[in-house]
Amino acid sequence: MTKLSAAEQIKTAEIIAIGTELLLGQTMDTNSFYLAEKLSDLGINTFRRQVVGDHRERIHDAIRLALEVNDLVITTGGLGASDDDITVQVVSDITELALVEDSSVTAAIRKLYPDSDRPDFIIPRVPEGAKAFPNNNGTAPASLTTFSYKGQIRHILVLPGPPSENIPLLEEQVIPYLSRYSSSRFIHRYVRMIGIGEYKIEQHLKDLVTGQTNPTLAPYAGEGGVVLRISQKLEEGDEDRTGPLIDIIEERLGEYIYEIGTRSLEEVVAEKLHSHDLTCAFAESCTGGALSARLVSLPGTSNIFKGSIVSYSSSVKKDVLGVDPAIIEKYGVVSAECAQAMAENCRRLLKADLNLSVTGFAGPEGGTPENPVGTVYFALTHGDSVSVYRKYFSGNRQRVINYAVATALDLLRRSCTE
Amino acid sequence: MTKLSAAEQIKTAEIIAIGTELLLGQTMDTNSFYLAEKLSDLGINTFRRQVVGDHRERIHDAIRLALEVNDLVITTGGLGASDDDITVQVVSDITELALVEDSSVTAAIRKLYPDSDRPDFIIPRVPEGAKAFPNNNGTAPASLTTFSYKGQIRHILVLPGPPSENIPLLEEQVIPYLSRYSSSRFIHRYVRMIGIGEYKIEQHLKDLVTGQTNPTLAPYAGEGGVVLRISQKLEEGDEDRTGPLIDIIEERLGEYIYEIGTRSLEEVVAEKLHSHDLTCAFAESCTGGALSARLVSLPGTSNIFKGSIVSYSSSVKKDVLGVDPAIIEKYGVVSAECAQAMAENCRRLLKADLNLSVTGFAGPEGGTPENPVGTVYFALTHGDSVSVYRKYFSGNRQRVINYAVATALDLLRRSCTE
Repeated sequence: MTKLSAAEQIKTAEIIAIGTELLLGQTMDTNSFYLAEKLSDLGINTFRRQVVGDHRERIHDAIRLALEVNDLVITTGGLGASDDDITVQVVSDITELALVEDSSVTAAIRKLYPDSDRPDFIIPRVPEGAKAFPNNNGTAPASLTTFSYKGQIRHILVLPGPPSENIPLLEEQVIPYLSRYSSSRFIHRYVRMIGIGEYKIEQHLKDLVTGQTNPTLAPYAGEGGVVLRISQKLEEGDEDRTGPLIDIIEERLGEYIYEIGTRSLEEVVAEKLHSHDLTCAFAESCTGGALSARLVSLPGTSNIFKGSIVSYSSSVKKDVLGVDPAIIEKYGVVSAECAQAMAENCRRLLKADLNLSVTGFAGPEGGTPENPVGTVYFALTHGDSVSVYRKYFSGNRQRVINYAVATALDLLRRSCTE
Repeated sequence: MTKLSAAEQIKTAEIIAIGTELLLGQTMDTNSFYLAEKLSDLGINTFRRQVVGDHRERIHDAIRLALEVNDLVITTGGLGASDDDITVQVVSDITELALVEDSSVTAAIRKLYPDSDRPDFIIPRVPEGAKAFPNNNGTAPASLTTFSYKGQIRHILVLPGPPSENIPLLEEQVIPYLSRYSSSRFIHRYVRMIGIGEYKIEQHLKDLVTGQTNPTLAPYAGEGGVVLRISQKLEEGDEDRTGPLIDIIEERLGEYIYEIGTRSLEEVVAEKLHSHDLTCAFAESCTGGALSARLVSLPGTSNIFKGSIVSYSSSVKKDVLGVDPAIIEKYGVVSAECAQAMAENCRRLLKADLNLSVTGFAGPEGGTPENPVGTVYFALTHGDSVSVYRKYFSGNRQRVINYAVATALDLLRRSCTE
């Protein structure tokens, strides 16, 4: 690839999302959110974003406004045979390039739509000379038009509106193509933790968080855990410095890390169970089946998950699971003793290698002075041994349930590595 | 309330979301989505929306651009004591109004932050003469400044960025206040259905969907069902015409409707179980606990939900639930016979009034020529009787699970009304 001159490089971009349904708040503009991150990864700066309706003049004004100060203008939506391709017509007006059929686009359409030789079928067109990207999930292609605007080299990237068409086009064709116009790019790596909050992570990594500008570190809360993102802007000749940084993070916070990468907690647990050839079963109370459901959401769990007893009521704890009524009477259902009996009876009935119980007060009602709402007990059997844990989670009912599920999965994970 | 003159009315608005994290694609701009719908409900038109970074000059330019053609400009974010209140300072520059303390804002701060008399605690200010809305979930207030701009009456509404502060402010204070500036408003009503797709709904209501402009009808797919939205623009003196329209919809599609309003399917089911004083229990296979979890996500379910056996493996179906191995041998686990045995054993063990089983192929692996992936059997006992149902759901694993859960909840609902 020949090196680009500075004038050809894309340093700044503006995204224009087109769609009356976006202005009315009927559809959320997820395209711009997705695109913004991709542009940031390419090292392309954005200073403004616009949303306009499906209205020719307003699309025209928005593109011209963006062309004044940006190397690249990206539009999403306002395309498709049904609405007269307003956007490409506006691009044709602005660039003074005729709209023409593109052979790669036409070939893709013929393949995808066997009825495309019907006389009323409209083959979409692109500005003459534009780089066209055929759409394998719809009719409207993407196109990148490069032209001279007031003496500057400018680019207009036109994308379809539906994310189901937009995202594959961007991932497979457009982003790899655009990367040649940028001299820098971003790399992101993720360290996933559980059992420690954002605030404590920041305290442990204070020197790294505040003392570094490239790579940067940013923690954000996920479902029952925290994800730490490490981002580095790579200019030409730079080397990846995220590895040594992650080594330091592992050294300080290794006990909380379940994944360096993109896998979810349940994926990590499922893979550990598979690789250790272990099965699990649950006795759930306050999580009400949510722990089982999170594991079963993954395909191929039948070799590692036997089943659960969701003993939501005391009668099911006693009559189905077989918890001794005297334990419930003496200690209550939210107690270490009840959790242990639940796990042991789970092992007796479901016969898994790892048997895990969860019982707690998810709220808003319930709780005692010793065990307020948010208190959750866990017990885990592994062979003949059983371990019991007590945790407290703040927040509303759904948050307590989410954190209890994540903590239970983490206990399984730790149990596999021991 | 005195009637507003035409010049004072707000007919058009532009939303400007402020935040560098929005431009970088780190945070999704949900505020604008929420606001767009609220403005639409007030009958206020929007023709463009902008997103800009936390940068004084760019905020300034964005507000001026919007003031050219709109009665109302709304900003979200770029506020708060920590970042020097860039937005209100820009508003002060543009309106030429000094920033002053507002007694209602200061009083709310003193109440919410007992340490606010610390010398380094910065009390937020608003443009002189602005209507201030104290923030009960953070420090930065909202404010509405009305002023003359190039000979026109213009309004600037400044809102904080975090949705947790923004939405309560809008709902409780700002939207009711803004409504006085609009002479029309929208009303929305919702008809929620299950067991029928969007396409069939449109066919049954074709005359209403295409023949009407006010109220309008629009169906959209939700989790395992369809929501039909009926919207009417009410000008002064208009009467609500949504009622007669909903009567027609009920007449045609009543069998699929579980709610006319905003309750979720699980809320409807829980209320029906409560009011009929009935308990339920589940034997789940392919849904893996997701059915139980969806009911338990609601508070106060202990009177209506006894528990579940998640019999994901065949051994648990046989050994814990007590399904006759001969049934599994002869018909397989995904069969009407197995579903019936699961529900009957659920009744035997958990002793609920309504005992419901779910067994099917959620995919991607599994399935047979007679029962391909997506096939799900349900059985429901009510007293001594038992009913069995077979359904087919297209789509990926998570979609099959979602639809199976929604269908199971709907079977419970129908069983309560019989």
